[in-house]
Amino acid sequence: MTYSVVKRGSENTADYRLFFKNGNGEIISPWHDIPLRVPGKNNTFNAVVEIPRFTNHKMEISTKDPGNPIKQDTKNGILRFVKNHLPYHGYLWNYGALPQTWENPTHVDSRTNAKGDNDPLDICEIGQRIASRGEVLQVKILGAFALIDEGETDWKIICVNTADPMAARLDDLEDVEKYMPGIVEATRDWFATYKVNDGKPVNQFAFGCKPLHREFALSVIDEAHAFYKKLISDRSNKVLSYGLNSRDYRSAFEQTPPSGSPAALPEDGKSLFPIYFYKLISIYLVDKIWFGHLRPPH
Amino acid sequence: MTYSVVKRGSENTADYRLFFKNGNGEIISPWHDIPLRVPGKNNTFNAVVEIPRFTNHKMEISTKDPGNPIKQDTKNGILRFVKNHLPYHGYLWNYGALPQTWENPTHVDSRTNAKGDNDPLDICEIGQRIASRGEVLQVKILGAFALIDEGETDWKIICVNTADPMAARLDDLEDVEKYMPGIVEATRDWFATYKVNDGKPVNQFAFGCKPLHREFALSVIDEAHAFYKKLISDRSNKVLSYGLNSRDYRSAFEQTPPSGSPAALPEDGKSLFPIYFYKLISIYLVDKIWFGHLRPPH
Repeated sequence: MTYSVVKRGSENTADYRLFFKNGNGEIISPWHDIPLRVPGKNNTFNAVVEIPRFTNHKMEISTKDPGNPIKQDTKNGILRFVKNHLPYHGYLWNYGALPQTWENPTHVDSRTNAKGDNDPLDICEIGQRIASRGEVLQVKILGAFALIDEGETDWKIICVNTADPMAARLDDLEDVEKYMPGIVEATRDWFATYKVNDGKPVNQFAFGCKPLHREFALSVIDEAHAFYKKLISDRSNKVLSYGLNSRDYRSAFEQTPPSGSPAALPEDGKSLFPIYFYKLISIYLVDKIWFGHLRPPH
Repeated sequence: MTYSVVKRGSENTADYRLFFKNGNGEIISPWHDIPLRVPGKNNTFNAVVEIPRFTNHKMEISTKDPGNPIKQDTKNGILRFVKNHLPYHGYLWNYGALPQTWENPTHVDSRTNAKGDNDPLDICEIGQRIASRGEVLQVKILGAFALIDEGETDWKIICVNTADPMAARLDDLEDVEKYMPGIVEATRDWFATYKVNDGKPVNQFAFGCKPLHREFALSVIDEAHAFYKKLISDRSNKVLSYGLNSRDYRSAFEQTPPSGSPAALPEDGKSLFPIYFYKLISIYLVDKIWFGHLRPPH
């Protein structure tokens, strides 16, 4: 199945939406209607790109709206942008989500001792190509980090587009270290420090900040898929907030404003470079308290 | 004096030019007509931004054309783009040149044992703001690296926009390490590996790859300024190729094609992400042969 996106509203406004269509032109939910595993392909997963590499707009699948379009996250009514933190520009990979997975916010993960973050599992796709927003990639799973983001478990699954020229050589973390040296450490550093320029502390990881292998990542995915299946089979009221209350996605789509030209980038989206003062605080924390754990042992 | 730029030709073509104007609207040369030091401001230098942070187009002051406009470098007729190399996106700083300086290609630098690269001195401006192409910044000098790029001495002067919120705290390398930790090491890593994705070897540095202090950087600038003054006072034929053969910059300007809409980005400008195979070779070289030198001693 091939998928495509349809823009609604204007970029840089709260109205902006990317709805998904399947190959038959029907509006579908990227969370509920795209299979987790690509049918007929062993160990190949669908992954929905929310934030293309080198961009800052914090876009995500809306778990609350019918059709679950991608929209920009807001905080207190303000559009969210991830600030650049040296030496990175925006996101380091094509970042997105695995369909039909859910990090259960009512379940304390025994491995991380923290509850799930109530979202689909996040992926970092490390291939060469800059994907487009809303693109559905077919990926191989390579590893994971167990990020603890403001007290919630927030697994980050490392994967690569199966169409990438290097994909055939990559099966597990060791291959990534061998063929893309530096990307795993940079990924860890990125997640550790990405909120520091907003004045927040350095993020923590479970497992002594170590990257986790493919088999481990696959078990995390299986678990999140099971949580997802339980979630959608539960016909209590709670489910209503996950965009499943109506399967008439087309009328939800038609009720959104039509596609318009992008609005000007808000000030918050421009002042993207580090406020070094915060970086300074973070480096103090990282170096003095915690970087010993973060650095790889060799 | 304030300066501005006027676009000619179309971006992503060999015709693209940025000419410079002074506050009186006269076409000037950014190399010959902007003073190295800002008049009336102690230790403040003018710096011409050629390549804004996070961009890949290899733009530079043309030393050969009347008026010395900024244009995109070409190699065998093909526009040059710097490939991204993990984890960087394009250039890490606002990159540019110091007016009225020249790295003498006939002089073997006793410190680097290599001749100059026949261009104005390069600068890396590390402030927060993403500057625009052709912007003239007023900067403080903070340090330098002695890059040896394909056998030529190619000094990289580290500086900061005096208008940057952090500028008052920055006077020398130690301050940069303190307030912008990581940027010096990232700068070194960037220059070491930036040609690797084009299949070229890792670049070398003089001085055991160490960053050099402000006083040292200032002496490099003084020397390059002296070479420049000697160059332009030499009225032999050779000088003709440095854009000084005619000071009638306006007619040179008027002979270029008028400003047009950007052309499509060439394929070469799109495939910007690493060919990991090359990165692999480079890492072998860096780790096995040379990274010992590159890593800071602590």
